[in-house]
Amino acid sequence: MRFGETRVMMKTDKIPEATIMRMTVYSRYIEHLRQQDVATISSFDIAEGAGVSSAQVRKDLAYFGEFGTRGVGYNVDELCGHIRRILGLSQEWPSVLVGAGKLGSALALYEGFNMRGFHIVGVFDEDPDPIGNRFGSIDVLPMGELEKVIENENVKIGIITVPAVAAQEVAERLVSAGVKAILNFSPYVFNLPEDIIVRHVDFSLYLEVLTFSLTYGKK
Amino acid sequence: MRFGETRVMMKTDKIPEATIMRMTVYSRYIEHLRQQDVATISSFDIAEGAGVSSAQVRKDLAYFGEFGTRGVGYNVDELCGHIRRILGLSQEWPSVLVGAGKLGSALALYEGFNMRGFHIVGVFDEDPDPIGNRFGSIDVLPMGELEKVIENENVKIGIITVPAVAAQEVAERLVSAGVKAILNFSPYVFNLPEDIIVRHVDFSLYLEVLTFSLTYGKK
Repeated sequence: MRFGETRVMMKTDKIPEATIMRMTVYSRYIEHLRQQDVATISSFDIAEGAGVSSAQVRKDLAYFGEFGTRGVGYNVDELCGHIRRILGLSQEWPSVLVGAGKLGSALALYEGFNMRGFHIVGVFDEDPDPIGNRFGSIDVLPMGELEKVIENENVKIGIITVPAVAAQEVAERLVSAGVKAILNFSPYVFNLPEDIIVRHVDFSLYLEVLTFSLTYGKK
Repeated sequence: MRFGETRVMMKTDKIPEATIMRMTVYSRYIEHLRQQDVATISSFDIAEGAGVSSAQVRKDLAYFGEFGTRGVGYNVDELCGHIRRILGLSQEWPSVLVGAGKLGSALALYEGFNMRGFHIVGVFDEDPDPIGNRFGSIDVLPMGELEKVIENENVKIGIITVPAVAAQEVAERLVSAGVKAILNFSPYVFNLPEDIIVRHVDFSLYLEVLTFSLTYGKK
């Protein structure tokens, strides 16, 4: 049984998860520069934008092979595409969300998902009350349709925002229907097959990073 | 201008933020063991529980001095208290939340905050509609009372869930009133004094870690 953030183990064990997290941040910054028609950047520029050292940037990028020209830097267009491919963003990832409560509806309406190419194809709930509602363009559907939608839309990603007591059952249904990766907002830690990728979002972790900084860091 | 997750720099630069994130995960696991009356644990136990290597556990803990006895391991009670103190959790952190929409209300009702000792003393909104509502035991108050509550309750932490267009102004008001650390759920990147600690929560970062694992990791 494993707890929280660091639970996800890559099959490619050599690549630290922290590197992947930083790659997502680099990606945002570099795409921001591309929109401003910047053609070339150095690891120093990326480092400055992401708030890390340039040595860290070079080390992170090096996990994925050689790109960039010494003394010239990186071509912004190429680097954008390269990182998006690494992160799996060059393909579409239809997702389902289970739990149409406050958090579920906030996530269904979350602009950041569409901005990064994620598309929620259905929100599901046990409760008949929200069924038939729409969050933006997304229908709230009964749980009875979960398996059908996952199969028809070839969904590999499930997002869970149900109460803790229902989370394990929902996770098992997702996995049985073909979901391979779960983003879990419930406080429950799942017991699932080893090959299922689970990422747990615990909002209080973020607050603890703040209180550490306020206390120990005395920033 | 810095983007996203890695923006927060510790004054204690030597301690990586990844270490702090892992400390919060160790803390949860060790407290779980304490509730089960486990008296002593090894770095191997913690590593197993947190899904990291035992060398990583020892390295992380070593940032904060010597504790534990070679060959015996760590006293669970002592280690719990020690980590809570490091994370700043041995004191109370009254917080305010601005933005009483779906995400704001979901966070105000989020059980995980109370479980870890965080206490939201007020939810604030510009819109008069939700004013007077309660999320659990938390009142929704008008923005006009923000400064008074921050001062009276000695609030150092602000949580922002307003739309991007309002985020900078809200952040400035929080800081002027005495807030030192902000957890930001808005997609907006703030321009704030250097000594203010900001942590940005971008849900799509989590999805990208999943899609990386699904694509590159081929787990």
